Amino acid sequence: MTVTLEDIRQAAQDLVGQVVRTPCSHSRTLSEISGAEVYVKFENLQYTASFKDRGAFIKMSSLTQAEQAKGVVAMSAGNHAQAVAYHAERLGLAATIVMPEGSPTVKVKNTRRFGARVVLSGETIDDAAVYANKLAEDEGLTFVHPYNDEKVMTGQGTVGLEILEDVPDLDAVIVPIGGGGLIAGIAIAAKAIRPEIEIFGVEASLFPSMYQALQGMPVTSGGRTVADGIAVKTPGNLTMPVVQELVSDIFLTSEEQLEHGVQTLLEIEKTVAEGSGAAPLSALLAHGDRFAGKKVCLILTGGNIDSRILSAVIERGLVRDGRMVRLRIAIPDAPGTLAKIAGIIGNADANIIDVYHQRAFSSLPVKQADLDVVLETLDRDHIVDIVGRLTAAGFLVRELGPDESSLA
Amino acid sequence: MTVTLEDIRQAAQDLVGQVVRTPCSHSRTLSEISGAEVYVKFENLQYTASFKDRGAFIKMSSLTQAEQAKGVVAMSAGNHAQAVAYHAERLGLAATIVMPEGSPTVKVKNTRRFGARVVLSGETIDDAAVYANKLAEDEGLTFVHPYNDEKVMTGQGTVGLEILEDVPDLDAVIVPIGGGGLIAGIAIAAKAIRPEIEIFGVEASLFPSMYQALQGMPVTSGGRTVADGIAVKTPGNLTMPVVQELVSDIFLTSEEQLEHGVQTLLEIEKTVAEGSGAAPLSALLAHGDRFAGKKVCLILTGGNIDSRILSAVIERGLVRDGRMVRLRIAIPDAPGTLAKIAGIIGNADANIIDVYHQRAFSSLPVKQADLDVVLETLDRDHIVDIVGRLTAAGFLVRELGPDESSLA
Repeated sequence: MTVTLEDIRQAAQDLVGQVVRTPCSHSRTLSEISGAEVYVKFENLQYTASFKDRGAFIKMSSLTQAEQAKGVVAMSAGNHAQAVAYHAERLGLAATIVMPEGSPTVKVKNTRRFGARVVLSGETIDDAAVYANKLAEDEGLTFVHPYNDEKVMTGQGTVGLEILEDVPDLDAVIVPIGGGGLIAGIAIAAKAIRPEIEIFGVEASLFPSMYQALQGMPVTSGGRTVADGIAVKTPGNLTMPVVQELVSDIFLTSEEQLEHGVQTLLEIEKTVAEGSGAAPLSALLAHGDRFAGKKVCLILTGGNIDSRILSAVIERGLVRDGRMVRLRIAIPDAPGTLAKIAGIIGNADANIIDVYHQRAFSSLPVKQADLDVVLETLDRDHIVDIVGRLTAAGFLVRELGPDESSLA
Repeated sequence: MTVTLEDIRQAAQDLVGQVVRTPCSHSRTLSEISGAEVYVKFENLQYTASFKDRGAFIKMSSLTQAEQAKGVVAMSAGNHAQAVAYHAERLGLAATIVMPEGSPTVKVKNTRRFGARVVLSGETIDDAAVYANKLAEDEGLTFVHPYNDEKVMTGQGTVGLEILEDVPDLDAVIVPIGGGGLIAGIAIAAKAIRPEIEIFGVEASLFPSMYQALQGMPVTSGGRTVADGIAVKTPGNLTMPVVQELVSDIFLTSEEQLEHGVQTLLEIEKTVAEGSGAAPLSALLAHGDRFAGKKVCLILTGGNIDSRILSAVIERGLVRDGRMVRLRIAIPDAPGTLAKIAGIIGNADANIIDVYHQRAFSSLPVKQADLDVVLETLDRDHIVDIVGRLTAAGFLVRELGPDESSLA
């Protein structure tokens, strides 16, 4: 590995005026919740809303004039695509972005609006990568790899300089790991400046590829994760040795922890994090004992989360927090029953937002029916109170779990 | 009016270390969308997530020792309640907050966590105010008014200093108006430093109380607005003359414009605004011609929006943007029809998220039925395409409007 602190310092100078010098702010409330002294580095405030702007600019601006004249190609349906397209346009380079077939039109649009040529090819991201490499060869384009590239790692490493400029006595940094470009860059910079700092990585439990590779375990990544920004199956062969040498530990976070992280950043920091951007907070909350009293910086890597997903995360958070609940109530199928139940629930100050009846598919006797009600509640205690009142009135009630289908 | 630029400068010094010096950042994308040079002042990043921290601290820290020993009382179920409770605790003052009966438990909890006594009294905020004044008299407490108070206006005015520190050549500021404390303070500071700056106010169309009062019209405020932070029926008699003298114009924004503002700040700035905090952006987007090419600062006053409301705003935004749609399809009630329709929709790359059948209440002949489908779509063009395909296959289709009930 030849990336050095000096390279990263040079990159930081080259980035002045090209990317946003994002804030690294202390969070009083996250500190209270976690027991650590928490700082958040807001890379979601970059123009394309992720740290990828840094590496993309450093890579493309380092090309020779001949290379720049031929243009670049990248493979990504996400943050890297937008970063390459945006900075290619600013640098006056022709950019081609290869995305898998069936990529959401909105992502194609977002990339095309920077003037990039978007080519849809291959069923998976790996197929798309094969095609991107072929294009690079056929058309003489420079391939801009999302992480396994020294220039890209150098660019991402500037995040490490900035957090130590802002908080020189940091004890630890927690960084999401996809292919490892960001954490490798940050680790090289931060460890060179402050050897006692500890660097931690986070991966989604569904995509523990770097963790498994370092442990010599077979890599078993796969599935649908809310942290799509770090859903990478193949760690970089340039990044992996750096992680092995400089990173203290890699945490794995569940989908529920990731969702809770997104929800917490939204409610407390008033900021939009994508799933991978929330991963460091998720890891901190799960391993608070390890960071008690320490100054920890969470790298909030990006804020590009689909609005539909964000809305679903908020609603599932409401359910987790007891602020929304589904109850199934066995009722005699007779006039006046719904009025009685609605009255009990209303008296308990809960708001009924949906009601479903079921007769045909119920396992109850024919003269009974199931009633599902969806309620807005205040917290878990409130739910217990409502269930108690219904039970006291003679109704058989149970709370529906997250995976039970309602009668809708 | 005796509030001066010097008072506000002194307040700014007193606030150092007590409240957050929030960023005022240029937004490239909002500038592109609006045609103005847009800056956003992020007061949602205060500790209690609104600018109210400023006035509350300045007011309470200005009390005599005897007044401080007796404590303060305030009336609010929102941002002012939290700001007074938080800074009272920090200053070691006893605080009583009066909220209307039936205030959400979460607001009571959020205020109690700062050690404040919360008293629920009165059906409306006006009744609560009467009780708060009575408490002030009976117990010798100092009443901390949310806006009609010179110290409070002085504290809020520090926002005006900061935006001109950060962007000295601003042409205009757009400020939400509830009772007028914030805009009066900002106007006094900003106009004194830079007389050519123009100050604009925004009110929700449902609560145009300052606008109407200044025009000598009867005040007709009322209704449920997403901008509850500025849902004020009575402009202050201290603030109104300042607004009359120094404010160029007051814009009124509809609920839809406010929701669109919240959605835009979330998607583009990756930040959470409450309805009133988004009002300046809503006004700018509606009156872009007036600000073309000008340097405009939007005061994003707060980020305390209920998660349920935020989720609803996101989903309604999806509908507005054509990314979610409900179609009603008249179908022969025969086997295979649903499969055929689902096939057509699937081939058009739309995702079906809900399906409802209706027979009993349909106005169609007995052998027909209504089918409602809820779809995830890409944009309006995609919806037109899907409706075209269904129509071409012989189905009678129409899009359900926002206020039509579905068959659920």
